[in-house]
Amino acid sequence: MAALAGVSQSAVSRAFTPGSSIAEAKRQRILEAARRLNYVPNSIASSLTTKRTNIVAVILGNLANPFYVEVLRTFIARLQAQGRQILTFTVDNGADSDEAILRVLRYQVDGVILTSAQLSTRMTSICHDRGIPIVLFNRYIPGSDASGVRCDNTGGGRLMAEAFLAAGARSFAMIKGDPKGTTSQDRVRGFTERLIEAGIARADIGEIEGQSTYDGAFNAVLGAYRRKPERLPDAIFGINDIMAMGAMDALRQRMGLKIPDDVMIGGFDDIPESRRHPYQLTTVRQPVGLMVDEALSILHLDEPAQPIEMGIDRQVPGRLIWRSTIPTPTASSED
Amino acid sequence: MAALAGVSQSAVSRAFTPGSSIAEAKRQRILEAARRLNYVPNSIASSLTTKRTNIVAVILGNLANPFYVEVLRTFIARLQAQGRQILTFTVDNGADSDEAILRVLRYQVDGVILTSAQLSTRMTSICHDRGIPIVLFNRYIPGSDASGVRCDNTGGGRLMAEAFLAAGARSFAMIKGDPKGTTSQDRVRGFTERLIEAGIARADIGEIEGQSTYDGAFNAVLGAYRRKPERLPDAIFGINDIMAMGAMDALRQRMGLKIPDDVMIGGFDDIPESRRHPYQLTTVRQPVGLMVDEALSILHLDEPAQPIEMGIDRQVPGRLIWRSTIPTPTASSED
Repeated sequence: MAALAGVSQSAVSRAFTPGSSIAEAKRQRILEAARRLNYVPNSIASSLTTKRTNIVAVILGNLANPFYVEVLRTFIARLQAQGRQILTFTVDNGADSDEAILRVLRYQVDGVILTSAQLSTRMTSICHDRGIPIVLFNRYIPGSDASGVRCDNTGGGRLMAEAFLAAGARSFAMIKGDPKGTTSQDRVRGFTERLIEAGIARADIGEIEGQSTYDGAFNAVLGAYRRKPERLPDAIFGINDIMAMGAMDALRQRMGLKIPDDVMIGGFDDIPESRRHPYQLTTVRQPVGLMVDEALSILHLDEPAQPIEMGIDRQVPGRLIWRSTIPTPTASSED
Repeated sequence: MAALAGVSQSAVSRAFTPGSSIAEAKRQRILEAARRLNYVPNSIASSLTTKRTNIVAVILGNLANPFYVEVLRTFIARLQAQGRQILTFTVDNGADSDEAILRVLRYQVDGVILTSAQLSTRMTSICHDRGIPIVLFNRYIPGSDASGVRCDNTGGGRLMAEAFLAAGARSFAMIKGDPKGTTSQDRVRGFTERLIEAGIARADIGEIEGQSTYDGAFNAVLGAYRRKPERLPDAIFGINDIMAMGAMDALRQRMGLKIPDDVMIGGFDDIPESRRHPYQLTTVRQPVGLMVDEALSILHLDEPAQPIEMGIDRQVPGRLIWRSTIPTPTASSED
């Protein structure tokens, strides 16, 4: 193979290794020769000597939430562009990811990305002891030294509270997601704290459980208000967009209510679906691309000799996107 | 490790190997001992002798279409339950998957699932020559001996034509997807053939390009009809649900039309979103679970010694699901 392309064996190896130094023209010549010969380097065998597989594991909770589909798409796009492969695991909502991590460790991955799922502090230690960096995406593990990137979920909850207050709302409900998820907890806390600072009584801040899904929120809203419309608050905060969308459909299509005239709705995430015409949801945008880049920089896959970065908790601010589900107090528009 | 659990080394190996014969109580005892010791078998090293990695590659095109998210979720759930891991690749719409396959081959996968993406016949041969089975999901490669499972897309197109005809439609448009995709081509062909059999003139069957996406269909419908509403046909067939939904939002929210009174809409796939209240789309359901099971049975991962099954073209019928976007000619209902 090396002889046919007129290059050294080490050049062949570099041509197939992401991030290694080789002139682009030479790399193309080697890849073309490889294509002619149907040559494929055996990454499994070479990983035994280099200890690098170019495989990154992504552990995901809930693909029913389009936000995490977007997150997965973005990680795949970035990692594939670097010549890396993605081993994908899903973990049921609420279940912990320890077993997924044990499986990951059998494949000698170069790094682990954990998003939308629970993990024990012990498992993060097991990864670190083996020299495998782990990064938490949009969650944290209290008491753990695992690094992570997340949206400022508490701050985002506060932004939504301020938007409702500015539009004149005085009574509220939150549709909560996974009770064990720090993402849901933080958004709920920021929202509640800001309302209380503004003099809203705790009795005027209701909570319903939406199970992080469209159907969960749809049914929870009907269960809470259909027979007791007098309980309906001025404003409902779906702590993610997909639940806010489920709430909107229940309120409009099944209860005949108008949004925002009869009830205001706010979401969180800014998934593509929330921009569509039936919804036009006012929401807090999470900067997915930036968060993914930060997560990959913590893993520093190109510098495996560097020590694993511990204890980093990078928070990226969300941004309020005004659309049509909360009356805009002043002249505002999207983007 | 074997000594501590009081079992043989081969029992330890079997405990970690999906599908191997070992008593469940013994397996649990070994796994418990492994947990205590933080023992993880090295699958990479053992794969060099067994030639099995328990990794299956899934090559996907378009995750912007929720149907393929559902397909990915179903493959992940089934394969994880078997103790297997999923290496996920995405390929841009319209691009071919040859490079993805070359990457796959570096990781000695046990099988390849290709869905919603193009592949050359040469690449299927390269996989087969290396003993790696490949199965095509919802597409086929003319002239190739690669096996596959697909919905009867031609028959599904016919079903939709019949639904429109029964509701009295006499002029039609199709919103097409990826022009290179056999899925789109077959649905278009079945739909067109059935209309022509019913005496519809070809001039009364229009075509617009929706690029397989919500936004693509939304903009294509506005481009085709907003300034020329007289060209609007009686019925529009979105060859997948996500495009039918984009068309519905354009017609109703931007052109003020009523569905099905002003124009009927039909879709294909039956994604969860199409059942939601703003859409209630009449569509052709693809039986995803059944199709995934058939695809895995063709790969026969548990019997690697069996020869690769070539030339299988398994077609699973779709089913018309009546909702609210086509008037029901007789008393019918969903399920």
